[in-house]
Amino acid sequence: MFQQVAILGPGLLGASLAMALKARGLSGRVVAWSRRAETRAKCRTRPWCDAVEESAQQAVAGSDLVVLCTPVATIAPLVGELAGHVEPGALVTDVGSTKSLICRQARSLLSGRGGAFIGSHPMAGSELAGMEHAREDLFAGAPCFVTPVEDDPDHEVARLIRFWEALDMTVETLSPERHDEVVAHISHLPHFIASSLCGYLASRDPRWAHFAGPGLRDSTRIASGDPGLWRQIFSQNRDELLRALDGFEDELHALKAALLNDESTGVAALLERGKQYRDRLRTE
Amino acid sequence: MFQQVAILGPGLLGASLAMALKARGLSGRVVAWSRRAETRAKCRTRPWCDAVEESAQQAVAGSDLVVLCTPVATIAPLVGELAGHVEPGALVTDVGSTKSLICRQARSLLSGRGGAFIGSHPMAGSELAGMEHAREDLFAGAPCFVTPVEDDPDHEVARLIRFWEALDMTVETLSPERHDEVVAHISHLPHFIASSLCGYLASRDPRWAHFAGPGLRDSTRIASGDPGLWRQIFSQNRDELLRALDGFEDELHALKAALLNDESTGVAALLERGKQYRDRLRTE
Repeated sequence: MFQQVAILGPGLLGASLAMALKARGLSGRVVAWSRRAETRAKCRTRPWCDAVEESAQQAVAGSDLVVLCTPVATIAPLVGELAGHVEPGALVTDVGSTKSLICRQARSLLSGRGGAFIGSHPMAGSELAGMEHAREDLFAGAPCFVTPVEDDPDHEVARLIRFWEALDMTVETLSPERHDEVVAHISHLPHFIASSLCGYLASRDPRWAHFAGPGLRDSTRIASGDPGLWRQIFSQNRDELLRALDGFEDELHALKAALLNDESTGVAALLERGKQYRDRLRTE
Repeated sequence: MFQQVAILGPGLLGASLAMALKARGLSGRVVAWSRRAETRAKCRTRPWCDAVEESAQQAVAGSDLVVLCTPVATIAPLVGELAGHVEPGALVTDVGSTKSLICRQARSLLSGRGGAFIGSHPMAGSELAGMEHAREDLFAGAPCFVTPVEDDPDHEVARLIRFWEALDMTVETLSPERHDEVVAHISHLPHFIASSLCGYLASRDPRWAHFAGPGLRDSTRIASGDPGLWRQIFSQNRDELLRALDGFEDELHALKAALLNDESTGVAALLERGKQYRDRLRTE
């Protein structure tokens, strides 16, 4: 599918992607680069890595697909470092959890300097970060957003969609702005809430943690995510996240008011609405 | 350990308990009763059930342990129906998720009329209710609260603790009031939040559910719980739950304020506090 794919930032997502590319024969070569010398040294020992370059500019030389897998705040600046080095006709994408800011900045930085940037967001991952937790099947069966803007050439968009589909992902095409609204609700808000719940429980008696059942464990798992990465995600998607948070608080207050006034029918009706949503989630 | 155990209300918890009793040889006989004729008929076909009685009073006759496994709002009223029928010296307990109201009412209803009531709350269960989902190992390895009050005889409390320990549970002894404070935080609050989140998402574009990753699925699983049962739990533990909710909202607002003011260090510090709590939960 591609002759050479450059993976910039081989952490959980980048290394899993490289493994999947190799397993499925989707790229002739896989070239990796990381800003950290330690990570570059680790890459050299991995079977999914054909070459490790000392600079991002060297990694993109000869690559017809470049995938940026670094933390969201560093994606656009890294695209800036690549401008002028990307091969003409190469496709540049990323795997970041936010899209509006990244797509706007990256497109403008690459514009007219070789290569086209179109954002991606594979909805795969884990609260466990790092190459050590990478696995070949991380992407298979998961949804993936592709976020073109109006003047992106259709054939480039189609090529990017085919790429993620070849990893068994279900691709949804949305504008970067609409993407950020959607993930603010289904990903960033749940994370924000789980972190707040854990933060609050941390302020109470820590021994209570001993008695927690699977409910608390499952409902807070995502709060184990890397604070440094999530701080960036929240900041880049701040406005949409704050809007989603307001909506959540309205619902929370409606349920609280029903409980406060001992309106048992009202409480049950609100719980039922939540249950119906969740039950549908299970089977989809 | 017991000659005959009466299981009143053989749903997920009651039927799992009966299965575990049989598998571990902890009771000579297991007698079941349900208010619903349909459930009684089902019990007659199950290997864990030695007899099914038409009334709760008949089920407790000859039983030296009585376990009430019905929804929390019906536990104390059912104890009222049993008063005068429980064998002298028999132990009466329950598996309800709230304890203050139940223990106060049940003790006063049984007082001086044969049998002693001491509350229990095994922290086992699932969002899937009903006998069909029962399993022999539901309790094994999970925590269990036993909630005696001051004038309960030590040997009766010790007997109840030994019973749950024989099911491989780790028993914690707390007052009913303290129990309700603890579970308001580690069980009822997470449920309240998950239901509110799902209720809010239900009010937005329902197609977004298609794109949800494992994070949203895990963090909202408990919202699939039975609204009728949870309405009762919230109502019985209303004051503690509302207090816990206030504390959670304070934490939510602190994180929101840090994000609103773009204090990235503050956001990261709050996320880090949540992560540390959650990481400890994983290994305990």
